[in-house]
Amino acid sequence: MNQMLAAWQGTVTPEMEQVARDEGYPVEPVLQGVAAGTIVIPANMRRKNLKAVGIGTGLRTKVNANIGTSPKQSALDDHRVKLRVALDAGADAVMDLSTGGDLDRCRREILASCPVPVGTVPIYQAAIEAKERYGAIVAMREDELFEVVERQAKDGVDFFTIHAGVTLESLDRLRKQGRLTDIVSRGGSFLTGWMLHNDRENPFYKEFDRLLEICLAYDVALSLGDGMRPGCQADATDRAQVQELLILGELVDRCREAGVQVFVEGPGHVPLDQIIMNVQLQKRLCKGAPFYVLGPLVTDVAPGYDHITAAIGGAVAAMAGADFLCYVTPAEHLGLPTVEDVREGVIATRIAGHAADLVKRVPGAREWDERMSRARKALDWEKQIELAIDPEKARRYHTERNPEKFAGCTMCGEFCAMKLVGEYLGKDYENC
Amino acid sequence: MNQMLAAWQGTVTPEMEQVARDEGYPVEPVLQGVAAGTIVIPANMRRKNLKAVGIGTGLRTKVNANIGTSPKQSALDDHRVKLRVALDAGADAVMDLSTGGDLDRCRREILASCPVPVGTVPIYQAAIEAKERYGAIVAMREDELFEVVERQAKDGVDFFTIHAGVTLESLDRLRKQGRLTDIVSRGGSFLTGWMLHNDRENPFYKEFDRLLEICLAYDVALSLGDGMRPGCQADATDRAQVQELLILGELVDRCREAGVQVFVEGPGHVPLDQIIMNVQLQKRLCKGAPFYVLGPLVTDVAPGYDHITAAIGGAVAAMAGADFLCYVTPAEHLGLPTVEDVREGVIATRIAGHAADLVKRVPGAREWDERMSRARKALDWEKQIELAIDPEKARRYHTERNPEKFAGCTMCGEFCAMKLVGEYLGKDYENC
Repeated sequence: MNQMLAAWQGTVTPEMEQVARDEGYPVEPVLQGVAAGTIVIPANMRRKNLKAVGIGTGLRTKVNANIGTSPKQSALDDHRVKLRVALDAGADAVMDLSTGGDLDRCRREILASCPVPVGTVPIYQAAIEAKERYGAIVAMREDELFEVVERQAKDGVDFFTIHAGVTLESLDRLRKQGRLTDIVSRGGSFLTGWMLHNDRENPFYKEFDRLLEICLAYDVALSLGDGMRPGCQADATDRAQVQELLILGELVDRCREAGVQVFVEGPGHVPLDQIIMNVQLQKRLCKGAPFYVLGPLVTDVAPGYDHITAAIGGAVAAMAGADFLCYVTPAEHLGLPTVEDVREGVIATRIAGHAADLVKRVPGAREWDERMSRARKALDWEKQIELAIDPEKARRYHTERNPEKFAGCTMCGEFCAMKLVGEYLGKDYENC
Repeated sequence: MNQMLAAWQGTVTPEMEQVARDEGYPVEPVLQGVAAGTIVIPANMRRKNLKAVGIGTGLRTKVNANIGTSPKQSALDDHRVKLRVALDAGADAVMDLSTGGDLDRCRREILASCPVPVGTVPIYQAAIEAKERYGAIVAMREDELFEVVERQAKDGVDFFTIHAGVTLESLDRLRKQGRLTDIVSRGGSFLTGWMLHNDRENPFYKEFDRLLEICLAYDVALSLGDGMRPGCQADATDRAQVQELLILGELVDRCREAGVQVFVEGPGHVPLDQIIMNVQLQKRLCKGAPFYVLGPLVTDVAPGYDHITAAIGGAVAAMAGADFLCYVTPAEHLGLPTVEDVREGVIATRIAGHAADLVKRVPGAREWDERMSRARKALDWEKQIELAIDPEKARRYHTERNPEKFAGCTMCGEFCAMKLVGEYLGKDYENC
């Protein structure tokens, strides 16, 4: 059943029940959030074995991991292993960004084996097929674009990234703005190239109703892509970016009128002091639609560590109200992520989300930290490892970095400082 | 020459000149900052071969790396290698936190081979020597404490962490407060145990003038330690922590009256939404004294990733005005850091500092990111690697994660989307 239409009728879906259960809420506020569009539950009617996930206000901050094949078809392309690792590490959703090999088959494999929502960027496949068919992306026909969208919807994809805000108007603003790194969104570049070559408006914008029809028929959620997202600190929050956001805000209205669930994508590369403002601006212009951010990366100079630059920005964004964080791996800006990069990327992004959930007072967040702190105080190593966000790494580090097994402290001798402090505080301490 | 006394007289020292040169400022504002106490240049008169470093308002955010021996004397104890790695990775200062082996010898070795400011925590050595002499830390005599302070000052240590705010008053507040993890500062625990066992006030507080005399004689900067720092999210910014900060603020006044340079240490484990407030409170209560924070760690649940939890907190703290970040390694809460952990810890902390420097408008910060972004736009890999915060890792990742050497993009065929966009924007693009 279409989630938003059901919510409007006051009908509780199994997916809403699942989300309420996972989040520790009664189902009523979840239903109200879906009805209002502040909560999105991406759940294609044709998906099988989906464990529904909610994204939006009041809910735990969610993490997406990108996987998929590349044209180079290297050993790094093992999307099956990466999918498993991403899920093991706790990804709440995955996007299939494949650009190499048999795209239909790859997507269907992922959909068949993935229990969490799956998103795609249909312009990738449409562009690649146009290249194969005509030798050039810009030769793509509009009908072919929508044919790919429908094909992917029929397969059960739960959400689509659609760069419908890359319009002639926003391109004009981009030209007048002047930028250091221009357009860094791949989908945004494809569409821009097509628009300029053909001297036509973006089909996703011009025929947005056609897109909505497909999404409504299968209940695919729209993730309105930010083709104008800044690719460096210097380009952040400029007129091109904000122009696109204005258009995306209008499209949010149209999605909601049509009963299509929608969230909005955001930057990118953003200086630390512009992040909160970016989230507030999106929430205002897009009337509370969930915000899905890529990072933001708070500096451009740390290739090899962009999971950290993104965790800094993501934590601040999520604290300010961003709902959904796209992971960034240590390989960002350098190459294809390894399996280990995927794991590090998911965990770093979960840390950012959880740090925000602590202050957003998401149910259960503080309790997790308190349980860990009690285990730490009690020097209960097994409990600490069990409670760690990555128990496997915590165990490995604890083993490797404690050459002699911990067996009490030899520092204080008969008069243990910790014990004295404990007695003073009226607590029954073990010696440290 | 004593930096603060010189500044009061309007005398420019070679160290002030060094700092001004490194920071891209004229020397006048540096001198004024030292005179006012908003800038500290830790530079013991007896240190040889010191490249002076400034810490404080308007200057680049600095990073400290902790090194030193442990009582277990394991292979992880190679402080010589760790010192070299920390310096190579860009640490601006190091602290010798040794607690094992010949402490005097270890400290002198580090001082002899380290070009950046070196700090210590004298209570560690005093406690260990009391243990050796009497079998118990609490048997330490007050004179012995000051003897260790003077011995270390004579060796040339540039700054001392002194937990002078752990007083009977703040312990009383701690007791009334009730905490989840009580005292987690090692120096704070030693002093507290001593105070409770002997039923006496903290000698560093009671005889603060004696401490100031030693610091003045050698020009050792004081780093007023936060023995009451929270050890978990739940304990952050409680009455015990703020009580200690009030006392430290008063001690800042006394340092400045005496001509002793001083900065103040801060937490610790702090939820994301309390970090800015913590910095503002310190700056107000301590009259603009530089703030030296350990993290802050924004969640307790990520052992193995605490360089990331600390980078998130450190970036926000530094943006809000923190001046000096103590690194946290991935081994935090789990064991002794490996050499690789030391490197990761320094780089993660430098990322946090630099993200803040971008928004603090520290001279040169934005230019670095812009140069990187131009290299990225030009697909100039050598330049990107050269400009990376960790060029070695960037090169390794770029090599390992690009199985086929980059040789242009096969996506677009004849009509390159990037080229079309570039032509529209009036730029002379290479194909992507």
